[in-house]
Amino acid sequence: MDFLKYHESGKIKITSKVKVDHSNLHIYYTPGVAEPCMMISNIESEVYKYTWKSNSIAVISDGSRILGLGNIGPSAAMPLLEGKALLFNSYAGLDAVPIAISQLSVDETVKLVKSISHGFGGINLEDISTPRCYSILDRLINELNIPVFHDDQQGTAIVILASLFNALKIVNKNIQNVKIVLYGSGSANTAVYRLLKLSGVNPEKQISMFNSHGALGADRKELFEVPILKEICENVKSTSLEAAFKDADVLIALSASGPNTIDSELIKLMNKDAIVFVCANPVPEIDPITLKLMGVKVVATGRSDYPNQANNALIFPGLFRGVMDAMSSKVTWTMCIEVAKAVAKLAEEDGLNENYIIPNIDHPKLHYTVANSAALASIKEGFNRTANIDEIFEKIKKNLNK
Amino acid sequence: MDFLKYHESGKIKITSKVKVDHSNLHIYYTPGVAEPCMMISNIESEVYKYTWKSNSIAVISDGSRILGLGNIGPSAAMPLLEGKALLFNSYAGLDAVPIAISQLSVDETVKLVKSISHGFGGINLEDISTPRCYSILDRLINELNIPVFHDDQQGTAIVILASLFNALKIVNKNIQNVKIVLYGSGSANTAVYRLLKLSGVNPEKQISMFNSHGALGADRKELFEVPILKEICENVKSTSLEAAFKDADVLIALSASGPNTIDSELIKLMNKDAIVFVCANPVPEIDPITLKLMGVKVVATGRSDYPNQANNALIFPGLFRGVMDAMSSKVTWTMCIEVAKAVAKLAEEDGLNENYIIPNIDHPKLHYTVANSAALASIKEGFNRTANIDEIFEKIKKNLNK
Repeated sequence: MDFLKYHESGKIKITSKVKVDHSNLHIYYTPGVAEPCMMISNIESEVYKYTWKSNSIAVISDGSRILGLGNIGPSAAMPLLEGKALLFNSYAGLDAVPIAISQLSVDETVKLVKSISHGFGGINLEDISTPRCYSILDRLINELNIPVFHDDQQGTAIVILASLFNALKIVNKNIQNVKIVLYGSGSANTAVYRLLKLSGVNPEKQISMFNSHGALGADRKELFEVPILKEICENVKSTSLEAAFKDADVLIALSASGPNTIDSELIKLMNKDAIVFVCANPVPEIDPITLKLMGVKVVATGRSDYPNQANNALIFPGLFRGVMDAMSSKVTWTMCIEVAKAVAKLAEEDGLNENYIIPNIDHPKLHYTVANSAALASIKEGFNRTANIDEIFEKIKKNLNK
Repeated sequence: MDFLKYHESGKIKITSKVKVDHSNLHIYYTPGVAEPCMMISNIESEVYKYTWKSNSIAVISDGSRILGLGNIGPSAAMPLLEGKALLFNSYAGLDAVPIAISQLSVDETVKLVKSISHGFGGINLEDISTPRCYSILDRLINELNIPVFHDDQQGTAIVILASLFNALKIVNKNIQNVKIVLYGSGSANTAVYRLLKLSGVNPEKQISMFNSHGALGADRKELFEVPILKEICENVKSTSLEAAFKDADVLIALSASGPNTIDSELIKLMNKDAIVFVCANPVPEIDPITLKLMGVKVVATGRSDYPNQANNALIFPGLFRGVMDAMSSKVTWTMCIEVAKAVAKLAEEDGLNENYIIPNIDHPKLHYTVANSAALASIKEGFNRTANIDEIFEKIKKNLNK
């Protein structure tokens, strides 16, 4: 298909909020602009009041791992960053600025992002290669006092978890009893692992995890230098593919490897009322139609042309709206669970069925629900700077309608 | 005066150029966005076609020297950066993004700006302290292949030079015969020195230069570690203030030091038909009314409430429009002279008088004139990437009317 022409000249632009001319130049430019400059110099937090910081986020990538395309470099990341900025702007009214950065070490990347963060109220990281993205995210969350989020980790994991919560309701199984196979051990599935564990899943008993070199487990010493992979290797149930799929209730494939990555014979080993998420983009690991014909009860993909699109675009606009309007200084992993629960509940209120476990991106209440749950979660954890929840909800409502 | 309220929530915003919903998410986001990503990955220059790069610039400051306020830090620089972005957007239709950066060494600043430049078509530096700004600008001009401009150096120098060209026409004096005093040796006046020299002024015979510690000259060894100051010290006529002002034709004060920096008795020593530019902001070095009463023929300031406002805002929007639409890879010092000449000519066509030596920022032809002259100059120097000048003029016209 030829979608190139839709991206010509880019998808976002800057516009002026005031009309400037010779008669008011002294207000908006010199000498008038010295007043807010001085104010912020005296009280730094006033930058939220007198600049766009309360509504602006930087969407940052070094192009080291773009979609299923691999390392295509910072310039080639720009269309994706603009697409992301477009969604932030369209669905949440945020001033999202695409910034493509050079490929640097973890230390240098952390320093760079911190060095350009002063005028932004939040940072959304995007498509940075593993394992660098793990420490970059964790360090920035610790070292900055504005929300930092890596969509490919937390965003994807939240929408997967929300979908799983509802799929389990349909098959009437409990998350603490199901047998789970995680296929792929990249940024998305390691984050799914973290959220499953925080949701009460026992990895030793319930989770097996595979990547292209086999099962993760205590013998995979080559993975141990990455802390999160070491943790997973030491905690999950290491076994053969066949043993893992035998009577499994849930398969979450986030492998980015494309079609036929998983032998469909393995699906036949799964338990009754199986739940299968095949989220490789653009082509799922196993064809979703085939899965349904094989009797899989609930299927989700990352695509918009099948039912149950588990797309992180459902999450990131509203989540930032919420934490920005609550003036939260962090997005934590436990906050992610709260957001997943809220999204699941929204679909449940509409009435669940095997083809409807997750709301559509245009659901009239979706972004408001996500924003409110993120704001509430940040208050619960004590990371917000404003206390009045009704005011925050009002602010969210107003900003979403911008 | 209370101008604070005009700056609340900032002066610019991001808006979407397309309407996105569930039905076209596959075009603007995944998987469709992979097409322009791949295209740019194969042919990097296509980033100009498939992103906002051809129209976007980063407006960057570390807040180390803001207006007359000194080192107030990056956050406090944001209102000014947004003011600048507002002017770029309002007068030239550019997508100008304010980016406040941490205060780093010259090396680190150069590296940082290069690391975030991939998605921008140009870089406007702003209010960076001397002497760091000199090497930062010179190195970025050499090391990047997009236009880099430091407004406080080149922008101010261009508008001063344009004003001087016309002031000299009014008093009927030749630039190669006048005696010139430069007062202040900061980023603006060192750039004025560079442009005067390139315009045929002989520094040894014609220019004396002063800063708060006295005359620049061969004995000012403490300044020699800064290359441009060393060059000035070794080339200008070092003399006493009195000897310098005695029969001087031109005084250009860009001292940022405020009122009464210069003893008005010195003005009395100047030649008949004196030209005096007192550009400290917000309060000029000598009161402009007093200067007129003392018989100074042509007075210019940086203020909008006196005649002859020599404000760099006349220059930077159009200049970037021109070099961006010509796809020029550089702004050179000789290009600056061409732009100054074009601006001077525009005012001349309107009819010059002592209260009208420079166009007003709302002059209907100003930004178009600046843009065209910058585009032409870049073609003359061979730095543009597109050759058809008529097409470039058409593009400029279209973009200015956005």
